[in-house]
Amino acid sequence: MPGGTDMTLRPFAWRAENLYPDTEIVSRTHEGIERYTYADYAKRTAQLAHAMTEYGIEEGDRVATFCWNHHRHFETYFGIPTIGAQLHTINPLLPDEHIQYIVDNADDQLIFVDDSLAPKLAQAAEGAEEFDGVDFVVMSETETDALDATPYEEFISGHPTEFDWPQVDEDQPAGMCYTSGTTGKPKGVEYTNKMLWAHTMATLTPHGIPMNDDDVVMPVVPMFHVNAWGMPFTATAAGAKHVYPGPSPDPEDLAKLIEEEGVTITAGVPTVWLGLMEYAKENDLDLSALDTVIVGGSAAPESMIRWFDDRGVELLHAWGMSEMSPIGSVSHLKSDLADADYETQVQKRAKQGIMVPGLEFKVINEDGEQIAWDGEEFGELHVRGPWVTKEYFKRPDANEEDFVDVPGSEATGKSGDGTSSGRWLKTGDVVTVDEDGYLKIVDRAKDVIKSGGEWISSVELENAIMAHDDVSEATVIGVPHEKWQERPVAFIVPMEGADEDTIREEVLEMLHEEYPKWWIPDAVEFIDAVPKTATGKFSKKDLREQYTGSVELHEGSVPEDAAPDQND
Amino acid sequence: MPGGTDMTLRPFAWRAENLYPDTEIVSRTHEGIERYTYADYAKRTAQLAHAMTEYGIEEGDRVATFCWNHHRHFETYFGIPTIGAQLHTINPLLPDEHIQYIVDNADDQLIFVDDSLAPKLAQAAEGAEEFDGVDFVVMSETETDALDATPYEEFISGHPTEFDWPQVDEDQPAGMCYTSGTTGKPKGVEYTNKMLWAHTMATLTPHGIPMNDDDVVMPVVPMFHVNAWGMPFTATAAGAKHVYPGPSPDPEDLAKLIEEEGVTITAGVPTVWLGLMEYAKENDLDLSALDTVIVGGSAAPESMIRWFDDRGVELLHAWGMSEMSPIGSVSHLKSDLADADYETQVQKRAKQGIMVPGLEFKVINEDGEQIAWDGEEFGELHVRGPWVTKEYFKRPDANEEDFVDVPGSEATGKSGDGTSSGRWLKTGDVVTVDEDGYLKIVDRAKDVIKSGGEWISSVELENAIMAHDDVSEATVIGVPHEKWQERPVAFIVPMEGADEDTIREEVLEMLHEEYPKWWIPDAVEFIDAVPKTATGKFSKKDLREQYTGSVELHEGSVPEDAAPDQND
Repeated sequence: MPGGTDMTLRPFAWRAENLYPDTEIVSRTHEGIERYTYADYAKRTAQLAHAMTEYGIEEGDRVATFCWNHHRHFETYFGIPTIGAQLHTINPLLPDEHIQYIVDNADDQLIFVDDSLAPKLAQAAEGAEEFDGVDFVVMSETETDALDATPYEEFISGHPTEFDWPQVDEDQPAGMCYTSGTTGKPKGVEYTNKMLWAHTMATLTPHGIPMNDDDVVMPVVPMFHVNAWGMPFTATAAGAKHVYPGPSPDPEDLAKLIEEEGVTITAGVPTVWLGLMEYAKENDLDLSALDTVIVGGSAAPESMIRWFDDRGVELLHAWGMSEMSPIGSVSHLKSDLADADYETQVQKRAKQGIMVPGLEFKVINEDGEQIAWDGEEFGELHVRGPWVTKEYFKRPDANEEDFVDVPGSEATGKSGDGTSSGRWLKTGDVVTVDEDGYLKIVDRAKDVIKSGGEWISSVELENAIMAHDDVSEATVIGVPHEKWQERPVAFIVPMEGADEDTIREEVLEMLHEEYPKWWIPDAVEFIDAVPKTATGKFSKKDLREQYTGSVELHEGSVPEDAAPDQND
Repeated sequence: MPGGTDMTLRPFAWRAENLYPDTEIVSRTHEGIERYTYADYAKRTAQLAHAMTEYGIEEGDRVATFCWNHHRHFETYFGIPTIGAQLHTINPLLPDEHIQYIVDNADDQLIFVDDSLAPKLAQAAEGAEEFDGVDFVVMSETETDALDATPYEEFISGHPTEFDWPQVDEDQPAGMCYTSGTTGKPKGVEYTNKMLWAHTMATLTPHGIPMNDDDVVMPVVPMFHVNAWGMPFTATAAGAKHVYPGPSPDPEDLAKLIEEEGVTITAGVPTVWLGLMEYAKENDLDLSALDTVIVGGSAAPESMIRWFDDRGVELLHAWGMSEMSPIGSVSHLKSDLADADYETQVQKRAKQGIMVPGLEFKVINEDGEQIAWDGEEFGELHVRGPWVTKEYFKRPDANEEDFVDVPGSEATGKSGDGTSSGRWLKTGDVVTVDEDGYLKIVDRAKDVIKSGGEWISSVELENAIMAHDDVSEATVIGVPHEKWQERPVAFIVPMEGADEDTIREEVLEMLHEEYPKWWIPDAVEFIDAVPKTATGKFSKKDLREQYTGSVELHEGSVPEDAAPDQND
């Protein structure tokens, strides 16, 4: 029978180091650009493995990182899992109490921390018993003032540049990430070697985010956020050149890296690309090398797709979750849409895409029934597959809430049947599926606005509002309403110098043309910035806390008879 | 912890049936062209699953096929494994006693057999106790005279077109194939769901044989030969159109299918393409839709690569084994060779290629040492990975011979280290690895010619000889020699009408220019055809049996001092 040590990460690194020894790994640091090859990488990860082993890290131990995207962080990506330990990336943007909880919950002993993030970590660690006995390695050549930490270069130096890599069990966790839940404590997700192996291979297929050895891959999405969507692993398996943008890159930094390093594939949340689009208004921007921009984390507006199209760059919308390692669907244009008109194509590509091979999904409505694939019906997306987690780390309460075991028969999909039992992840995303199988997230289950017994998609309204030229950002939340349970209220960040009253008037007019009257927000408010979560997503929870109750509903802005009849 | 039911075949079929319901599956039959869609396929495989369940097939049972490449055979590809049973493809070209042994060894109960192959199977079954209790389904609408068999269409008809697919354990074997060993009994290789899942995903990566939903995939390699190199699974995972060329297609049949169905990817052994090249000499051949021809089974001559290049078609050399599901390496041009001159590129592409992501290999010479990656040193290739089998079916004797367990430390590759232990498959292929990591098979371990204490690659001589315009086929074997242990003898099939003496003279002259004197064959013999194995490969074993001893060594054709000094 087949063994359980084949689906591990080491063969990906082995292949790159041996087949592409001269291919570069490039890293932007505070001092400039660091540049070396896979051959160097092989030696340095071997040294790191020796150093960790000497320190006392054993198979099954968790080792944490508190870092931006750079070459040393990338060294931990293979260096930690290939000795059988577990790469635990901590999000440095979390509040102190979350960091304390996470370090304690994960039982971290050793944390690799960036020089620039050391003060933040020192603040979280100070006086916190969760940090008792934790040691630090600072990602630099020299010590840091903020923490008692060994410099990384000192930590690894002098060790042999070859390592006798063990055969790791493929079910051994290789990675770990905490989801920054909007309510309650962060939930830990463990990524086994096998999950990351499967995710890497699925990502490399044409329906994922294929990469080859002539690609230059720059993950802008932070490496502390679901392993930068797995790109450091994927790029290595492909033998691609890596470019890491370093600490808090601004649009100019990204533009320079894209131009000077010839980046062909990059990935990040929409706000990153909005920043680049703003930058391009006043600066020359050469995107000639760039083939593909992956956008995830939240929905990319159609205008962004068009903007990149105009510059010969394909924007691929990807959807995923921390619980899914993370990739689920990618908005590739299906071949039977190749001859569709451009508008139709853009509308398809603005959806979250089609599920990559190897995953199964079903969409369940409020009545527990599967929805029709008509692009209209809503329901909660359920997924299953080799890189979808089956549980949270030490959190039976959350497991009960977010997973569903289907003991009996359960048909899935449009025409065919799925398999009949097993554990499904409830994604918390409310979606439609169109006749072509494209998923579209219409809301988070907790953000969908329940008005008069019907659902209104807050996300759809937001995208419509953000299409207005004078709107920089917009978000829509449901506020409590005596008669209708909830009513939508829009919050808009205007472009600099734009007139608020004009925007309000034009936006409402636009919405009236596109949506039923009962979808139209009861109020439009203007704010300086949309509050964001630690991962850069709009934080509706914060907005609700900040604004609910203080919003003055504009009486008469929507006629009462516009709301749906509850008996409909 | 992750479960063990995710890496199965059902999700690939589910995805194609739901995302690409209108995409076609096309099949050439004796009557003409059959054509239906994935939506139809979904219904028919559900009916097949019901029929087999009613017949009594249970999880873990083996179900055999004895068929060419067609839609009904493809229905068994998913229909059998997705109910937890095991698709056992039998090679109908094997001798009767091998078929009897295989049916007995695999404990087959039910065999799906082609109408045209029923007489052959009836002959093997007649009076053979190995066939006691075995039932037959003939792949047609009507009965066959040769066997007492239920017609397939009758077998499945009337059953429901939906099936409540079970969750199958991923370690459950999904497939099985016997290698037609040149010595001894055929050896059974089982393919678990997990192995086929991993093989499918790895094949879809850019370093494998990527396919997309706009591809039209025609496996010419028989479906009884390592699942047609996995293409029916891969094409389904990609949502591609399938084209099956039916019973014993000739070059004209293939040409018509390529042209009329717009085939973009096809695959087969070199002799298939030699046939097409011959056909093209006297017929118009439109290859405009074709992107890629996969050549495997044995090495493609450089002239074939050039011939397809001239027609805008990329010939990809693939190397694999029954024990590897089967794909190991593919001769993609690495990006740093993109600027190399055409001759260099062709030479690289004529090698067996670079290992696909997910596999590890090492090459061990006679002294048990790893060879240098210099393109010169020889050794036996060892491989390991998720789709490489760990054992033969019920054959502990063969396991001992063909696998090696490495308990301690073992570095692999050029610069980096591999993992340190585990089970490696000894491929029996003798290879070089060049500085770019391209594998080149210089011989089978059993075919390499041992002359004067040194190794001569019979394959390299064959390729050199086949480059001669008047040579249709050529093979070189070692014949016993008193002084030098073995000496090479070349067997040539001349092109029609060519002059044998001229060929002999020119070939020897060519070889003298390219190779050391002691490599030059002692004799050049002319034959009508090279004997072939059941899978279409040159059978050197047969040639040795037929010719050894009867060959007159041409005294003086090679001066004695041309042979290497044994003390070198």
